[in-house]
Amino acid sequence: MPVSDPSHEMNETQAALMRATYEALCKHGYANITIQRIGDEFPKSKSLIYQHHAGKDELLVAFLETMIEHFETEIPVEDSIDAREQLQSLLDHLLAPTLDEERYEFMSAMTELRAQAPHNEAYRNHFTKSDRIFHEHIADILRTGIEQGIFRSVDPDRTAELLLTTIDGSMLRRTTTEGSVDISAVRHELDAFIQCRLLVDEN
Amino acid sequence: MPVSDPSHEMNETQAALMRATYEALCKHGYANITIQRIGDEFPKSKSLIYQHHAGKDELLVAFLETMIEHFETEIPVEDSIDAREQLQSLLDHLLAPTLDEERYEFMSAMTELRAQAPHNEAYRNHFTKSDRIFHEHIADILRTGIEQGIFRSVDPDRTAELLLTTIDGSMLRRTTTEGSVDISAVRHELDAFIQCRLLVDEN
Repeated sequence: MPVSDPSHEMNETQAALMRATYEALCKHGYANITIQRIGDEFPKSKSLIYQHHAGKDELLVAFLETMIEHFETEIPVEDSIDAREQLQSLLDHLLAPTLDEERYEFMSAMTELRAQAPHNEAYRNHFTKSDRIFHEHIADILRTGIEQGIFRSVDPDRTAELLLTTIDGSMLRRTTTEGSVDISAVRHELDAFIQCRLLVDEN
Repeated sequence: MPVSDPSHEMNETQAALMRATYEALCKHGYANITIQRIGDEFPKSKSLIYQHHAGKDELLVAFLETMIEHFETEIPVEDSIDAREQLQSLLDHLLAPTLDEERYEFMSAMTELRAQAPHNEAYRNHFTKSDRIFHEHIADILRTGIEQGIFRSVDPDRTAELLLTTIDGSMLRRTTTEGSVDISAVRHELDAFIQCRLLVDEN
């Protein structure tokens, strides 16, 4: 999901801590992250970390929540913009054919965090919520496109489920295999789906 | 991916160990599995476990390899069967709308195992290989369908990538959220994709 500066509109200490968590996740992944290593990226007193968070997982879930809040406030669906362009731009971002190292490391850490969900309720609640929010975001784009007469009157919730599931699957595959996923192929076929299932015929 | 008796054509001890690993994974998940707990499910001497495998992860990777071998030898693509039926039956299995508890627990453990891949080369090699094998299986069905004149002459590798990515994503989402994924919706939209992208018009 879109990664951007999580520091917006937060108090400065909390923002610095979230930035440090992000840096430590990219460097060490979930498997090797520790409060100590987050502290190494944190320019303020380490005691502030323990003061606000009971442990590593509490801090990481707080980090994930911050990312969602940022996404919710910063990336609205624009009624005035062509929904097809909004959808393409979302897919361009999430199915980018190549990733720089930082983004790849961060995406890998997100896969590791997500895999805590089967045995950790706080992570499960987070990913349930984040899936719902990204589902709504995609469904909103589809609804806008239907209102704009660009998309056929499909069920936006159903179609959003397919797109979200494919996006989540692409992140899983690209972070857990040695380049075995062909992201351009996935994108090509999603574009074919959009063409034959979603777009109103122009003639 | 299909779960079935991994004991086929293996020696009895190894088969019992693979069965014990399966049982322990379903009961405890990766997060809480130990060699001791695998041993609890193993009817033979525990020393046989240590004799064959250096540790928990070596044993789990061996278990994953056994599952792949079983899949490769037991589930061929049948040239004589309607490719559309083969594809539907694969999707029926992998996108089953409900899962019994054992299958859900096993699928959750598989998500946890897969998330070891970003920092563990043996897991990454395994999932690279298993993705390739399932990709080839799906692409074979698509190629068969094209030869049978049922499917349009799409690029089977591209289309297989979309299907595999969506299947992997559905497993990830259903094991890491509190029922937030609507599997029937995903299936409905994949069927729509198959209809508009893949099937040859019958008129």
